[in-house]
Amino acid sequence: MLQLYFSPMACSLASRIALMEAGLDARYHLVHLWTKTIVDDDSDFRSISPKGAVLVLENGERLTESAAVLQYIADRRPETGLAPPFGDPDRYRLQEWLSFVGAEIHKAFLFPTFWYKDDGSLAKPRARITQTLAVPSAHLAGREFLVGNRFTVADAHLLWALLLLRPAGIDIAQWPSLSAYLERMQARPAVREVIATEMALRKTLG
Amino acid sequence: MLQLYFSPMACSLASRIALMEAGLDARYHLVHLWTKTIVDDDSDFRSISPKGAVLVLENGERLTESAAVLQYIADRRPETGLAPPFGDPDRYRLQEWLSFVGAEIHKAFLFPTFWYKDDGSLAKPRARITQTLAVPSAHLAGREFLVGNRFTVADAHLLWALLLLRPAGIDIAQWPSLSAYLERMQARPAVREVIATEMALRKTLG
Repeated sequence: MLQLYFSPMACSLASRIALMEAGLDARYHLVHLWTKTIVDDDSDFRSISPKGAVLVLENGERLTESAAVLQYIADRRPETGLAPPFGDPDRYRLQEWLSFVGAEIHKAFLFPTFWYKDDGSLAKPRARITQTLAVPSAHLAGREFLVGNRFTVADAHLLWALLLLRPAGIDIAQWPSLSAYLERMQARPAVREVIATEMALRKTLG
Repeated sequence: MLQLYFSPMACSLASRIALMEAGLDARYHLVHLWTKTIVDDDSDFRSISPKGAVLVLENGERLTESAAVLQYIADRRPETGLAPPFGDPDRYRLQEWLSFVGAEIHKAFLFPTFWYKDDGSLAKPRARITQTLAVPSAHLAGREFLVGNRFTVADAHLLWALLLLRPAGIDIAQWPSLSAYLERMQARPAVREVIATEMALRKTLG
């Protein structure tokens, strides 16, 4: 069975949504990121991933990085259309958005915002996020989804990043197309269920 | 014909190497990143890419983000093995490394180092890079290439990032496996030629 090592509301949320949308069963292992332990049995998470970061998807081998894991999940169930098939030019569009969300929104903005505590490290990323978010904002004006005309794992990735804007102190209302998009995404049953599950778990972690 | 918008020694270098390794002809358009102009004709680069950043690969449509562009180039010449074929588990390993280099090394470290001028913004990324580079360092101890047993576009991406460590003030000698890997990569004729071309161009930009 697929196993996902996750932390509530971390980037692993996108892969949990993808698994739900794909109708794939998985075992979910909660990871405590500060202590680097797996909550199931208090074992050392670094023995699973030397990176010490979520997410990790295990299926015989272990795979990390949302861009890879999300495509892996989508390709297990090609009939769901969670990723355009290989050979379709839209597959590269999907990879383009996965890279943009993972690098420009997650690593260039969300990561410093939540992990660096001093204002010096935060001023530049914060100044830059408006310009960054203008890109998906323009793209989603008049479109329902990021790629093609159906929900893909790129949407799972972006919607996760947009959910974190509020705790990061950024008001999404300044981009009406992003705000409407996030509302549409949150109306999907799988998305709503995953967010409710992880928000509840987050409270138990304190 | 393929067209690559690039800036000397920027992340577009990896795609130029991939094009050379694939034996693909392309037109190369030099972009001045400070003025956001295309040096050919002094036209506005933002009309090519609203992101205002290299790289952009044009082939009818325009594609951005190294992770997507590098896979696109590799898939034009599957016989070169620059990316494992779709369906091969190693294809996800390739995507994992492309994401790691693009997010963890490029956006979390190189970008702040070269674009943010105040020390406050740089302290945390600099403190983190040792831990980040331990990941490819451990992986490459005893292996010639990142994925499988041949050169792939993931190597093009990583070797570019490693080239920038010295200007970023990081001594690669502290990771002997990375240092040996970079030396091996620079011994490849395509890699050597691309670096020589772009270093020369860089000087002309001042």
